[in-house]
Amino acid sequence: MDERLEKQLAFSLEIDKEKNIFRQTHLSGHGRNENDAEHAWHMAVMAYLLREYANEEVDITKVMLMCLIHDIVEIDAGDTYAYDTEGLKTQKAREDAAKERIFSLLPEDQKAELTALFDEFEAYDTPESRFAHSMDNLQPLLLNNSNGGGDWKEHNVTAEAVYGRQRKTRLGSEKLYEVTDRIIKDNIRKGSLQE
Amino acid sequence: MDERLEKQLAFSLEIDKEKNIFRQTHLSGHGRNENDAEHAWHMAVMAYLLREYANEEVDITKVMLMCLIHDIVEIDAGDTYAYDTEGLKTQKAREDAAKERIFSLLPEDQKAELTALFDEFEAYDTPESRFAHSMDNLQPLLLNNSNGGGDWKEHNVTAEAVYGRQRKTRLGSEKLYEVTDRIIKDNIRKGSLQE
Repeated sequence: MDERLEKQLAFSLEIDKEKNIFRQTHLSGHGRNENDAEHAWHMAVMAYLLREYANEEVDITKVMLMCLIHDIVEIDAGDTYAYDTEGLKTQKAREDAAKERIFSLLPEDQKAELTALFDEFEAYDTPESRFAHSMDNLQPLLLNNSNGGGDWKEHNVTAEAVYGRQRKTRLGSEKLYEVTDRIIKDNIRKGSLQE
Repeated sequence: MDERLEKQLAFSLEIDKEKNIFRQTHLSGHGRNENDAEHAWHMAVMAYLLREYANEEVDITKVMLMCLIHDIVEIDAGDTYAYDTEGLKTQKAREDAAKERIFSLLPEDQKAELTALFDEFEAYDTPESRFAHSMDNLQPLLLNNSNGGGDWKEHNVTAEAVYGRQRKTRLGSEKLYEVTDRIIKDNIRKGSLQE
């Protein structure tokens, strides 16, 4: 087998580990914690189905790819909960090291491509990355809302903290931010989110 | 919220259940059983990275979408193990009913689109569906091989049965079939597969 294919298969096997990285979000039906691979899959399907609500025209293939690969770094860096202020301080350094190690399993051109995609996602600087981030926010919000806001209750998250993160959904989709805002307000009213 | 968006979000929430449909394949590192959402995610990433090996030119977005949605029907129909001859007899009827119920949650145009994509995948009749099927075969093969062929051992699967399914990888990618064939032969030699 040639070296190129061997590298591609080694990477393909390595990313299997993403299925062991668990998030704070719980599956609908008061299920178990969700893992990164499931989250990425869900985001990619949603991105495709909801693409008509992107504020700007997007290359949907690129958005889906960003959704699919954006959490691979967490194989080494672990999941950092959106409202974990301590963890957030070291997140970038941990994820940069992970990105270098894991994407280096690929042939050089694909390492460069995936690294660029990941960096673009992180930079929030293109229509695609903004819409992909909207999915990264909306997907766990839908699950958490379906569970009565249990994830927020468990961590005593405040409405202010949720708005701090979720407000950015607006950069990718004004329309989907309306949904977000309504869900947050519902949860404040029901007492799942501290005002 | 308008009816269209409401339907799209209802579907988005419904497919969360795919994360509870477990397969016979085990995660690498002798891990737990894999679920359909993880499998779909893995296939989509692999399809993108390995697209250069498709026998024919493929619309990679379409391939990725097929990978992402091909198991949604299993939310109702359950997973049918590739070597479960009894289950395979009723698989189509179960999956057709599931397809109708689940895709009907979507707006009419998206129901039609996803139904067509699913049917195209099943029909094995286009370059995209052939390559997506190659991923559907190769992904669990990689995991199982990394675990010393444990899934085959557990079910006393014969080399003949594995070839019967995996031979079709060749329709999507001659090059990846070489990998498949090598893995199968290795596992026969090691006794993980009955000759």
